[in-house]
Amino acid sequence: MLLDQITKANDIKKIKSRDYATLAAQIREFLLEKVSKSGGHLGANLGVVELTMALHLELDFPTDKLIWDVGHQCYTHKLLTGRRDGFDDLRSFGGMSGFPKKNESDCDCFNTGHSSTSLSAGVGMAKARDLQGENHTIISVIGDGSLTGGMAYEALNNAARLDSPFIIILNDNNMSISENVGGMSKYLNRVRTADAYLDIKEGVYNILSDRKYGDKMTRGLQRAKESIRQRVIPGMFFEDLGIRYMGMVDGHDIARITRLIRESKRINQAVLIHVITEKGRGYPYALKYPARFHGTDPFDLKTGLAVKEKNVEYTDVFSRVITKLAGEDERIVAITAAMPDGTGLKRFRKKYPHRFFDVGIAEEHAVTFAAGLAAGGMKPVVAIYSSFLQRGYDQIVHDVCLQNLAVVFAIDRAGLVGGDGETHHGAFDLSYLSSIPGLYIMAPKNKWELADMLQFALQLSAPVAIRYPRGTAYGGLEGYRSPIVAGKAEMIYDESDICLLAVGSMVKEGEIIRTKIKEAGYGCTLVNARFVKPFDEEMILSLAAKHKIFVTLEENVASGAFGEKVLHLLAEKKPRVKVIQITLPDTYIEHGDVDLLKAKHGFDNQSIIKKILAKTKK
Amino acid sequence: MLLDQITKANDIKKIKSRDYATLAAQIREFLLEKVSKSGGHLGANLGVVELTMALHLELDFPTDKLIWDVGHQCYTHKLLTGRRDGFDDLRSFGGMSGFPKKNESDCDCFNTGHSSTSLSAGVGMAKARDLQGENHTIISVIGDGSLTGGMAYEALNNAARLDSPFIIILNDNNMSISENVGGMSKYLNRVRTADAYLDIKEGVYNILSDRKYGDKMTRGLQRAKESIRQRVIPGMFFEDLGIRYMGMVDGHDIARITRLIRESKRINQAVLIHVITEKGRGYPYALKYPARFHGTDPFDLKTGLAVKEKNVEYTDVFSRVITKLAGEDERIVAITAAMPDGTGLKRFRKKYPHRFFDVGIAEEHAVTFAAGLAAGGMKPVVAIYSSFLQRGYDQIVHDVCLQNLAVVFAIDRAGLVGGDGETHHGAFDLSYLSSIPGLYIMAPKNKWELADMLQFALQLSAPVAIRYPRGTAYGGLEGYRSPIVAGKAEMIYDESDICLLAVGSMVKEGEIIRTKIKEAGYGCTLVNARFVKPFDEEMILSLAAKHKIFVTLEENVASGAFGEKVLHLLAEKKPRVKVIQITLPDTYIEHGDVDLLKAKHGFDNQSIIKKILAKTKK
Repeated sequence: MLLDQITKANDIKKIKSRDYATLAAQIREFLLEKVSKSGGHLGANLGVVELTMALHLELDFPTDKLIWDVGHQCYTHKLLTGRRDGFDDLRSFGGMSGFPKKNESDCDCFNTGHSSTSLSAGVGMAKARDLQGENHTIISVIGDGSLTGGMAYEALNNAARLDSPFIIILNDNNMSISENVGGMSKYLNRVRTADAYLDIKEGVYNILSDRKYGDKMTRGLQRAKESIRQRVIPGMFFEDLGIRYMGMVDGHDIARITRLIRESKRINQAVLIHVITEKGRGYPYALKYPARFHGTDPFDLKTGLAVKEKNVEYTDVFSRVITKLAGEDERIVAITAAMPDGTGLKRFRKKYPHRFFDVGIAEEHAVTFAAGLAAGGMKPVVAIYSSFLQRGYDQIVHDVCLQNLAVVFAIDRAGLVGGDGETHHGAFDLSYLSSIPGLYIMAPKNKWELADMLQFALQLSAPVAIRYPRGTAYGGLEGYRSPIVAGKAEMIYDESDICLLAVGSMVKEGEIIRTKIKEAGYGCTLVNARFVKPFDEEMILSLAAKHKIFVTLEENVASGAFGEKVLHLLAEKKPRVKVIQITLPDTYIEHGDVDLLKAKHGFDNQSIIKKILAKTKK
Repeated sequence: MLLDQITKANDIKKIKSRDYATLAAQIREFLLEKVSKSGGHLGANLGVVELTMALHLELDFPTDKLIWDVGHQCYTHKLLTGRRDGFDDLRSFGGMSGFPKKNESDCDCFNTGHSSTSLSAGVGMAKARDLQGENHTIISVIGDGSLTGGMAYEALNNAARLDSPFIIILNDNNMSISENVGGMSKYLNRVRTADAYLDIKEGVYNILSDRKYGDKMTRGLQRAKESIRQRVIPGMFFEDLGIRYMGMVDGHDIARITRLIRESKRINQAVLIHVITEKGRGYPYALKYPARFHGTDPFDLKTGLAVKEKNVEYTDVFSRVITKLAGEDERIVAITAAMPDGTGLKRFRKKYPHRFFDVGIAEEHAVTFAAGLAAGGMKPVVAIYSSFLQRGYDQIVHDVCLQNLAVVFAIDRAGLVGGDGETHHGAFDLSYLSSIPGLYIMAPKNKWELADMLQFALQLSAPVAIRYPRGTAYGGLEGYRSPIVAGKAEMIYDESDICLLAVGSMVKEGEIIRTKIKEAGYGCTLVNARFVKPFDEEMILSLAAKHKIFVTLEENVASGAFGEKVLHLLAEKKPRVKVIQITLPDTYIEHGDVDLLKAKHGFDNQSIIKKILAKTKK
């Protein structure tokens, strides 16, 4: 097998060009087999097999630098740089990451995970190269979806000022994670279908240079001709910004791509090569259901169906409830940043297309757009994953909360997410949100409470954030459904000695922990915090009389989160009470099965119980 | 005087058109007189007098909505909406804000302060209007500088999808706060100088529609002609994005601007009107020194000189030191987001132009660009104000610290800033930065320490944030200059009873507070924390033996900041020690003199001393 001949970087250069198609087919087969077992990003990877081969044919690793935007399309790159065995434990704890990682290979020069960062990083690396008198090649590969992110535009604006080679590959598959949106998407569509321009370009030239008119040509007309030459060519948007545009080129034609890369290396400015790829190429189900096969759980290769049926997830609950509530209040509108599927808003879109807005990968705009909607009298719900909402921090501070606008943030993937790893865990939202004046922050203990919180939030005339984790929605504690009251916690088990104050996902864990603590001979209260801000100071103070130890439990780093607030309160008002803060550690957490990650970082129930019981003995 | 006839919104409509020029002159005279006394934003306001008049002639307040990007150019708008008296206490405590404020007037529909938000807000308000079946006019006014912000691009990408009127006024004065930069700026420059295109456009048409060639015209050629028609017109960048472009128009020609606004109101899509204005118009010194008169302290109208000479500020110290250090290490590069003057990097730029990068108002890009530079072997220093760095939070988390890249953040304006008010106070940086794993966070007590910290930071192979306040650099405690050691605090006065742990600007205040506490009969230790993260746990624990009360002092909100960390440590290890956390309140703080703001919010020394002494009595 050809693939066997590639065991390290640059090995692909030994393959004969007549064998490229065979190699590409072998790579696709390999990826399909592996990802169907491990789960992972499929569609984007199937789309860039030939593009990646072309890049590896033209680049010299590790001297040259290749930056993958988002990075979930780097599987072929990993395969071609000696990481074939890694696919056996792709995205598993201790195994290979699904994203570029510098610590895996010196062929990965910049870690990615969030969208639209590759151009900024590339411009930085190009400047560093120039200042140090080096001359290696730097290439950023960015999808058309990532191009909707404002950062990418900021970087293009600056890339224009380079006077040395920097190559941008626009990997245009006409898709974000779901279909792509907005003016840029339409523009690229027009470029894609603009072959007519190219055909007739020559005709226009001929007319303009005709002898009869040649005499009349003023200097102005000369300039008009130059302008036409430039402007009839697709890609003027980029040329207007000062980026040299090349393309389009078929993303599955290795010879043409390598030729363009070679040409671009010789140009002393930023060049964008417009490559048209087919997301999901070579696997019919991925072509047919691109959103489902963007990132997939393990599936049956023959049928394309998931191996395991999913339980009801928090995302599903949000999806159903927000759609139902929208039926009762016409002012409710929903906003996603390129994730109608991931956030569950697909259902809302189907039912209320005019009240649904997918703004593209544009979290900053999403938040302030929602502020505008709220200022105009609507009730916007912004659904963004915890780690991506980091992009909207300033807008929540400056546009939403400063004006006390009633925007509801539905924050999915809050807490550990598993296989996507360190760039995707929602470990910081309680920290960065807690610093913001006037923001209500809530977390539901189970699926019914998420429904109740959404309803409550939409009735409150203030900004609200509701955070909930990835995965199965907890169906226990069904009987505990007291009405949500602003800033009030919910008592689950009212006892004495040790008081567990649990936030959201940790209420379920709190039940288990409590059982063990009781087995050890202590009374144990369990409180569902419900609100992280403002939190229930009154209840906590009243509980202080009959408890010696308070334990706060939250799936977030400690800094600025619930535990510090409770500690602050108790230290001031009830200084004899001990407080144990159970949080995620102050470190970036790797990828892998969530239970394994928890155990490694002392966040599993057993470790927590041990910590608590150790404190009782002091 | 004509200006006297305007006492409320819409009054301008009573003014006869032949008097517009006189009114404009009166407005300029008024603004000059007032701003020369109060200080404030001058250049931008002088530039938009006629534009604002035109907007007020065409809009019906408060039904129609006008959103000022950044908002510092809203003075004429305030003047025309019954707020003339407000200029007597412009930017003062309790007085009128220098930015749009909904609570000042119902003619202000959206608060602004940070850049590039107006388009997102405007698109949101337009959608809210459409969904509610209303039909008022919505106009966002954005400068060419603000157009370098990625948010603005994200919003343009979405504005393209509107099928109802939304008007964008591009207020193009070819300036950001300093000169404008990047590909977009060059593009607008080409548009500005593209009159030639317009002149020769007709000529090209004539050729193409010539009879002789008419016969030969294929359908393709017809399309080419259409394409030429579109593409020779300036503004294709916006048209490519799906925004209808109109202009350019002289921003001081009221009749032409009103005509374009009237036309745009009838177009069912987003329209951008390109208005060319002159920043500083009508005041020679503002024309000559646009950066200095962007935002100015009180000045002498006749000479243009500042009324008071400035003391040496932290900005100056940073400016000198970073330039000096760059002379010793060629790898040091400096990055600003459109603020070479404000951040003090002007000096660096002059000396090392090739190692200086002004990326435009693009904080997201600035941070990840720096990450790229660091990954490429350079030592980047990113100088951004505290409240603007909020825009780069995700990039610090995801691009810099996750990869442990040695980027130094020089964070100016950390703490209360005064007249610019709630959108500009640096009240959150210790909170949002403390949540980030692996980031060193420091704050200097005086000017020498800022120098030492910069030097230290540039030798550390890790990301570092140094935060320092606006205004005069403290010159006291000169003798205290022990070497900076990672994570170590500095002892200033080693006593007992009460221990003040002060961060940065609060060390100076700590000296005063300590004197008063000693006068009250207590011993008082003063520690300069130096590091907020990682902080000096060892010293604090060792001090716990001889102190009953610890007081943390920091100019930041409490959540996640230094005080909570110290409390956490002491509660766990030395539970008998009381901790008083002195912080800014959990609220947005208005504009005004910093001392008055501190007194109002209990952050002045007198209030702090009272709080501490009250605790000693318990």
